[in-house]
Amino acid sequence: MILDSRLEGDSYYITDLALCQVRLHHNAAFPWVLLTPQRPSLCEIIDLTPEDQHTLMQEIAFVSQIMRQVFEPKKLNIAALGNIVPQLHIHIIARYETDAAWPHPVWNSGITSAYTDPEKQEKIGLLKKAFAKTL
Amino acid sequence: MILDSRLEGDSYYITDLALCQVRLHHNAAFPWVLLTPQRPSLCEIIDLTPEDQHTLMQEIAFVSQIMRQVFEPKKLNIAALGNIVPQLHIHIIARYETDAAWPHPVWNSGITSAYTDPEKQEKIGLLKKAFAKTL
Repeated sequence: MILDSRLEGDSYYITDLALCQVRLHHNAAFPWVLLTPQRPSLCEIIDLTPEDQHTLMQEIAFVSQIMRQVFEPKKLNIAALGNIVPQLHIHIIARYETDAAWPHPVWNSGITSAYTDPEKQEKIGLLKKAFAKTL
Repeated sequence: MILDSRLEGDSYYITDLALCQVRLHHNAAFPWVLLTPQRPSLCEIIDLTPEDQHTLMQEIAFVSQIMRQVFEPKKLNIAALGNIVPQLHIHIIARYETDAAWPHPVWNSGITSAYTDPEKQEKIGLLKKAFAKTL
């Protein structure tokens, strides 16, 4: 499976699950990961086989638990949009009443922030450790 | 299960599936439905049992097929947000390259439109007919 270059450029590798590759989104304003099912030519969840849809839900739930455990958010925001990057990918974002976009969704919010290298390495490390403990 | 009054006020009844109630969102700018799992005290997908999570994915896929068939969109946008209305509900929105918010998500877009009564009845009728044919 070839990852869309925009998805790849906008995110950092965390781990591979049975179906999805998990990557940290580069917008440091929110703890935000992307799940990309590693199947060719997918745009919609309904392009997946029913078996892969089932696995996708299991992996969304699994990654949601990790996000909840690592970042202790008020709310998780989960979405499959793909109007700009058509390759199927799922956003899982940890949201807080104190974050700059609350209570609105992060898209169109104009709220962006760049990771410093140490911050990025810290967040990647936290996530990799949480996955390693559970997988 | 008691539907949150904001969810109920912002949408119109279409049908009940095994897990979710399906309702048409009142923003006429986009063909947009809401799926609300009929279980008490849910905020997150991971508050559902694994069995209900599996059913939720089946119903998301089923409603996505109906939305694709009835509205022939360029892309489906699917999301569980719930920062404002915490009761778990899933948005499924039919998107077009010609819609007023494209390619951005509909939330925060400022694009809203009210249904006239005949338009609303037409859309509800189209959806009810499509569900009746398939269920």
